[in-house]
Order: sequence, then structure tokens, then C-alpha cells
Amino acid sequence: MKAEILSIGTELLLGQITDTNAAWLAQQLPDFGIDLYYISQVGDNRQRLTETLRRAHDRSDLVICTGGLGPTEDDLTREAISDLLGEPMEVQPDLEKTLRAYFGGRGMEMPERNVKQATLIKSSQAMDNPVGTAPGWWVEHDGRFITCMPGVPHEMKTMWQNQVVPRLRERVTGSFIMSRTLKILGKGESAVEEMVQDYIRSTNPTLATYAKNDGIHLRITSKAPDEATARDLVFELEIKLRERLGTLIYGEDDETLEGVIGGMLQDRSYFLSVMEAGTGGALASMLNDAPQSQLFFRGGLVSQQPEVLAGWGVNGALLEANSILSTQVAEAMATAARLTLGTDVGLAICAAPRKDTFPDKPAGQIIMAADLLGTVRSAELNYRSNPSEIKRLGSVFGLNLLRRMLLK
Amino acid sequence: MKAEILSIGTELLLGQITDTNAAWLAQQLPDFGIDLYYISQVGDNRQRLTETLRRAHDRSDLVICTGGLGPTEDDLTREAISDLLGEPMEVQPDLEKTLRAYFGGRGMEMPERNVKQATLIKSSQAMDNPVGTAPGWWVEHDGRFITCMPGVPHEMKTMWQNQVVPRLRERVTGSFIMSRTLKILGKGESAVEEMVQDYIRSTNPTLATYAKNDGIHLRITSKAPDEATARDLVFELEIKLRERLGTLIYGEDDETLEGVIGGMLQDRSYFLSVMEAGTGGALASMLNDAPQSQLFFRGGLVSQQPEVLAGWGVNGALLEANSILSTQVAEAMATAARLTLGTDVGLAICAAPRKDTFPDKPAGQIIMAADLLGTVRSAELNYRSNPSEIKRLGSVFGLNLLRRMLLK
Repeated sequence: MKAEILSIGTELLLGQITDTNAAWLAQQLPDFGIDLYYISQVGDNRQRLTETLRRAHDRSDLVICTGGLGPTEDDLTREAISDLLGEPMEVQPDLEKTLRAYFGGRGMEMPERNVKQATLIKSSQAMDNPVGTAPGWWVEHDGRFITCMPGVPHEMKTMWQNQVVPRLRERVTGSFIMSRTLKILGKGESAVEEMVQDYIRSTNPTLATYAKNDGIHLRITSKAPDEATARDLVFELEIKLRERLGTLIYGEDDETLEGVIGGMLQDRSYFLSVMEAGTGGALASMLNDAPQSQLFFRGGLVSQQPEVLAGWGVNGALLEANSILSTQVAEAMATAARLTLGTDVGLAICAAPRKDTFPDKPAGQIIMAADLLGTVRSAELNYRSNPSEIKRLGSVFGLNLLRRMLLK
Repeated sequence: MKAEILSIGTELLLGQITDTNAAWLAQQLPDFGIDLYYISQVGDNRQRLTETLRRAHDRSDLVICTGGLGPTEDDLTREAISDLLGEPMEVQPDLEKTLRAYFGGRGMEMPERNVKQATLIKSSQAMDNPVGTAPGWWVEHDGRFITCMPGVPHEMKTMWQNQVVPRLRERVTGSFIMSRTLKILGKGESAVEEMVQDYIRSTNPTLATYAKNDGIHLRITSKAPDEATARDLVFELEIKLRERLGTLIYGEDDETLEGVIGGMLQDRSYFLSVMEAGTGGALASMLNDAPQSQLFFRGGLVSQQPEVLAGWGVNGALLEANSILSTQVAEAMATAARLTLGTDVGLAICAAPRKDTFPDKPAGQIIMAADLLGTVRSAELNYRSNPSEIKRLGSVFGLNLLRRMLLK
């Protein structure tokens, strides 16, 4: 099956927004065995939109549209499909009632122009939008499919999961698709691929690797006539991968590294504090993003000035004898963070995101250290990347150093 | 003049990368009076790429391609243009020499397959790539233009500025384009638009507003047969806007808010420290991104636990009597930051990015306070947005509070 994505809206052509919907949708399609050959962005112009839609409908089995479902004169996705198939748009009383109830529930009267959001054509079904006003359209015509979702990313994703995925399963692929992602830190992509290369060739379930900014993702995807079989296929491979990769795997699916670390710390009733020199609070900010972070994260101390670090308990003689960006200072910072904030664990990152961070050190150098109840470990990395990525990598690898210590 | 953007690479169709090049390029075109009607992403497939390129070349005066200029068999942009125009690719000795020198300078031998990066067709000129191996192509054929740049964003942007912009000026628009962006904080987009509405209708220079995550951007763009006239047109309007908007304007063009604040602090020889509750270090991390931040930013203290804040000098009785997310505590935190780290200025942010940050307070509440040599000011905001945006907004508006105090 061949698919094509159409992102609709003049704001895309003015560069006012970046089309993140297309990339997100593109990631979903391989799970259904659907090939994507084209993505296009087109503005709110009825003739150009209809022309682009016609070409897509002619050459692809499934056209996935986002945007242009609002109530204004510029929202023309419904009109273009109506033009394409020669089927008039008709107001549906039940949809109109739901739409008026949506506005009523917010104490507002529905503007009359919104009534076009309650229309369908003969070949279309409405797809419910629980988080917005515009229902989507699912169109079947001559054995081909067009699906239209709102352009707002969270509305689009909700509708995709609740409305499009079941229809794809039922009408398009005829099978259940299950997938699971295992997240890995501690090896690079090619090393991970080598470790699992006998499974990479497997066709059901399939196994694919992705390099992401929180490590390597291993994605298992199975296809079967029923849900139980699909789940078993995933589960069997997952067990084998977990045996082989062990603690290189830190999490799965929606789990985040900071959330996993938070869980490990809470299991042990440990509190964590951090000290950062050069990363400016990026590690603390990442920990702050974990759910219920106040239950394990006590606080962060951020500075790259020796006298400030000394005030937080880092040995002054050590600071005089060494660059801040050194294993000695990083280890002393981890211990100082633990002692000065009175926690079980202290984690420190020293890094040079830019050339001017520590003029005596190269940009991209990262040193991390952890103190767990008095046991100290450290590690060093060098990365060539932009400043924000180096700040992020320092935080990620620092948390992974702590994870490895907690596992022991 | 009508333009079209073509982003080339199978990784776009797999959702492995988001096409940020297209949005960036789309933002550049209005300055040249060029209309953009279509953007497409297409994979590394010679037939589909040639077909898409042919349609673009047929219906648009200028086709802007990115990607597919690498040395591998999957890099097919040159081949597709050669197919489209029926002109064979020929190795250029001077380009080959430059390419071999690039590798030689890195102590490597050039892989033979790279030689295709040294080819041209009859209608193409090479565009120099000082930051990568692949030269771009500028193609003129039957009065229409095709420009091909690398897919790597920083290589693309460098080539656009150095190679494409002068050619557009010379051959396409026949005029000089100048633009300047004024950055504004303290009013919303519609309020700013109202303040300058008599200029919004102007046609040369034009004036447009954009809501960005560091405030409202006002972009002035002029067009003239020579550079001096274009610059004068921008300058005249800029003076009028500066008179009208005064200190609402915090910076221009590439200036960042953190860089501007850093400059103001350095001019006064002031040092700054910050204390954050709820934003987890986002403010400190933003300040850390300013050039030479160590010359004005002493450090950051990050916690949302009352006993930790008390340890940093926030009055314990105040913490018992009030929520942390209160004006009283925020003001005390600003002063405590200033005193405990011995600086001239203390800045504090308390915010609830999520519902679970401060269970007694609604998500989206932000309170900021600044202490400048003992004078304390504070402000409060409420935003509905996602956690990372609330952390960012708190940091931006906190810095703007400090900016206003420094201006007095």
C-alpha cells in the first residue's frame, strides 16, 4: 500500500510554523507496512489544494491530510475533497448538535460559519475530535482512502490513535499491529545493531534501530490476524533482546530516562542533588521534568566560578590545582552536592558547550561524576556538536552513570 | 515570481528527521518578493525525484532543492537535474582539485565515489561550500532557475547567504533587499500591531509582526535598486518605530534576550545570581547560553523544597506562612539569591509547569521577582501551555522584569 501526506495551510508556506505533523505521521506508517513516497505542503488556495489532492489520490492508495478543517473561509480541505469527488457537502444534524453542545458547554454561542464543520459528503464518515471543534473525515472512494485530521498536533495525534488506527487495522491492513520500543544507553547505534543483527533480518516481528537524543531505540513490530498473537510475537522477541542486552536497556515505550532514574531513587528512598559547571542547569531542568520530581530531587547548584563552587564545599586547593573541567573537580562537586544539600546521592556535570565556556579546554568535553552514599565514580566524553546538544548529552550520560551505579 | 521548495531524502519520508530547512527557506522568500506555492519532500528515488522536479520546474520560476548532494548512490539530485534537462554531468578539473584538497587538508584520501561532487552540467554553475564537501548547483535554463544546496542545515544556510542571495538579487529580483527585525517584550502581538498599524499598510518598506517564543518580532523590509537606498528606507522606519515603541524594544536581528541582559549587566559591572522553584534550572540554562556568560552570571540555585530554600537564606517563617508560589516567597528568593552568592542582582522565578509541581496551585502560574541592589520588584502571570513552554516563558518574562529595572 502506498501513502502520501498532505499538510495544508498557508502558514507552512510562510515559514511561520514547521511541519512536525508530517514527520510524526511518517514514523507511524512503517508499523502498518504502508510505504510513504511523497509529503507535500500546500497553502489555503482551493484550486492548488484540489490539484495537489487529485494528484495524490491518483497515485497513492491512502492520502493523509492535516489542517484546513477550521471554520473560516481559508479552511478548504472539505471543499477540495468535495470538488475532487464531485460530491456536495451536506450538514449532518447529529454533528451540528454535537458542535453546538461543544460551544454551549463553554458558555458560548456557536458562530454560524462553524456549521461547515458539521458537514459530510457521501463517501465520508466523521471522525470524532474529543479535544477540539473540528471532526475529521474518513473518505473511502473506489477502493482508495483519504483521511483528514486537524492541523493542531495534539488534536491530530489523538484522532490518529482513536479513529485512524482502528480503521487502518480493519480496512487497510486487515491485521493487528503491535509494537514496543526498548531504549538503550551505553552503546552506539552500530554496536547495538551488531549485538542484535540476527534479529534485524526477521520479518515478523521486525526489528529496527533508531539513534535518538536519549539513546538508541530498538523498535519491535509484529503483525497478526488477532491481538493476542501479535502481542505474543512482540513479547517473545522482547524476552530474547532483554536477555542479550541486559542493563543496557533503561526503559521502554513512553518511559523517559529522568522518569526511570526518579523511580529507581524513590524505590530506594534516596534523594538526589546535582551540581553543574558549564551546563548551566540543563541537568536540573531535565530532572525537574520527571513526574513527581519533588519526591526524589532535592535541588541543583549551578555555577562555573571557582569561588562559588568553593562556597558550596568543593575543596579550594583542588580548584586551584585543577581546571574545573577535570575529573578531580567533578568528583569533588558530586560529593559537595551530596553533603551540602544533605542527600544520599550527588551528581555533577562539568562540560564545555562552547569554546568560551572554559578557555583552557576544548569545546565538547564532558566530565560527569556521581557520589552514591560515599562511593564515587566518574566518566569522560568528547562530543562535536552544538552547545544545546552538548548540554543535553552531558545530562543524559550523567544520569546514565548514576543509573549504572544504582543497578549494582 | 513563483518559487517551490523540494526537500530531498528518504530519511524525511521515514520521519527520522523533521524538515526544518523548508520552513527556514520559506521565511526568507517574502523579503525578495518571491511567492511560495508548494513545498514537497521526496525520497532518494531517481524516477520519483525527477518526476517531482519536472513538475516543479514546469510550474515555478525558481525551484529550491536541499539534500541529495552527497557522494553515495542514494544522492541523486544532480542526476535528476541532468535527466530533466537532458544534459550530461561532467567532472570539472578545478572542482575536483578543490575537493581533493579538502580531504588532503584533513589527512585523508578522497574516496573515488566523491568525484561526482565535482561535476556540473552545461546549464549549472558551482556554488562554493566552505563548511562541507558538496558544492551546490545554480541552474539557469530557459529563463528559469533551480538551486541545489546541501541538506545539512548549517551548510545550507551558509550557502544560501553567500551564494544564493547575491544571485537572487542580481538575476531574479534585480534589486537590493534589506531587512531588520526589532524584538519586543511587554505587549502582545495585537497590541503591538495596533501601535504601529499606520506602518503595517506601507509597501516599501513593508512591516510585519511575528509572535515568537522570545517576544514579538517586527520585521522591516525594503527594496531598492541600490544598497544605500534600501538601507535608508529601513533606517527611516526604524527610527520612527523606536520613537514610538521605546523600551518595549529589547533587541534587534540576531540579538538574544539573555545576550542583551548580559550586555546591560556587564556595562554596569553587575553580577547576577538566580534562584528557581518549579522551573528547575531553565532560567539559569538560558543565561548560560549568553556569550561570555561567566562575565556576569555567578550562579543558580534550584529547588522547590522549603527546607532547601531556607538553607539558602529564604526566611523560614515566610516559607511556613506562604506557598512557595507566592509573591512574598519569590521576592525573598530574589534577595536570598543576591545575598547568598554575593552579587549585585538576584532574580527569582517560581512557577508551576505541571499540576503536580505545587499541588496547592494551578498549572501555568508564574511569579517572578528581582532584587537590584536592595530594590525589589515582582510580577505575576498565568499561562496555559505545556510544561516546557511555561518554564521558558517564566525565564523570558523574569529576564524582562530585570531588564525594565536596569533601564531605570
